[in-house]
Amino acid sequence: MKISQGVEWGLHCATLLALAPPDRVVRRDRLAAHYGLPEAYLAKHLQAMARAGVLHAVPGPRGGYRLGREAARITVLDVVEAVEGSTPPFLCQEIRQRGTGALPPDQCRRPCAIHATMTAADQAWRASLRTVTIADLVARLPAGVRERNEKIVS
Amino acid sequence: MKISQGVEWGLHCATLLALAPPDRVVRRDRLAAHYGLPEAYLAKHLQAMARAGVLHAVPGPRGGYRLGREAARITVLDVVEAVEGSTPPFLCQEIRQRGTGALPPDQCRRPCAIHATMTAADQAWRASLRTVTIADLVARLPAGVRERNEKIVS
Ligand code: FES
Ligand code: FES
Repeated sequence: MKISQGVEWGLHCATLLALAPPDRVVRRDRLAAHYGLPEAYLAKHLQAMARAGVLHAVPGPRGGYRLGREAARITVLDVVEAVEGSTPPFLCQEIRQRGTGALPPDQCRRPCAIHATMTAADQAWRASLRTVTIADLVARLPAGVRERNEKIVS
Repeated sequence: MKISQGVEWGLHCATLLALAPPDRVVRRDRLAAHYGLPEAYLAKHLQAMARAGVLHAVPGPRGGYRLGREAARITVLDVVEAVEGSTPPFLCQEIRQRGTGALPPDQCRRPCAIHATMTAADQAWRASLRTVTIADLVARLPAGVRERNEKIVS
C-alpha cells in the first residue's frame, strides 16, 4: 500500500497557492522550482487537481494556477482524492463465492464482514482527512514561512 | 493506492482456521481449494502471517496451518500488517527542504502539518482495523456457514 508522491506535491502546492492574493495566478514552473519538483510530472497532478475543481487553471503564456475556491473550503481529502482518485484501496474479489467452499449468491447479497471492516476503515481514513483544510495547513506553517512565501507568490 | 489481494485471502483463511478444533492443522492446498486461490501465491501470504505470529505453521507432509493464538486476540489489523507490512503508506520526501523555497533544517525538526495530517489519518485507519478481531468476523458469518465450514476443517 502506497500513496503517490503527488499527494505531498499537490498539498504543498495548494498551501503555497493559498498565500497568493486573490486572482493571482502562479506559473507552473515557479511551483515546480519552489519545491524542486520535475515540472512535467507535477503538471499531471496539477491538471488532476484542476479537473477536480481544487485548482483553477489559466491557460496561455501568462497562465498558471490558483486555488479553485477559498482555502477554508478545500479539505486535504479533496486534494488526496483529486490526485489518487477515490477508488477504495481494498478491492473485494468475492472469494467467498469461489472454490470448493463457494457460498450461493443468495448468501452474498451484502458485503461480507471482512469487506465491511475494510470499508469502515477506509471511511475512517477519509473522515480524518476531511477534518483538515488548506486554510488549517496555512495556519500551521512555521513562524516566518507564511510571510516569506506570501512575498514569493505575490 | 491499493491494498494487496493477499489481505482478502489472509483474512478469509484466518476466519476459516478459527473454526477448526484446537490443534487441528489445515493443509495449505485445502485452504487454497476452499477459496479457489493459486496455492503458490497464497503460500507467500500464509508464511508472512506465520512470521508475524498470526498463524502457526506446522512443517512436513501432514503439515499446514492453524491460528497462532485465540481468534479473539487476533485483530484484522494484525493480519493486514502481516500481509502488507506496517510501513505507513504516505512517504514524506521532505520537499519543504528542496528547491528555491527550501526551509532551513532548524525549521524542519518536526513533521510538517501535511505530513502530520497524513499520519493522523493512517492512525485512524489502523485504529479502525484494530477494533475488529477474527472472532468478531466468525460471529458475523451468515447463518449456516459457520456450521458447514466447521465440518470442512474438522
Ligand atoms: S468475499 Fe471479498 S472480502 Fe469477503
Ligand atoms: S515536507 Fe513532506 S509532507 Fe511536508
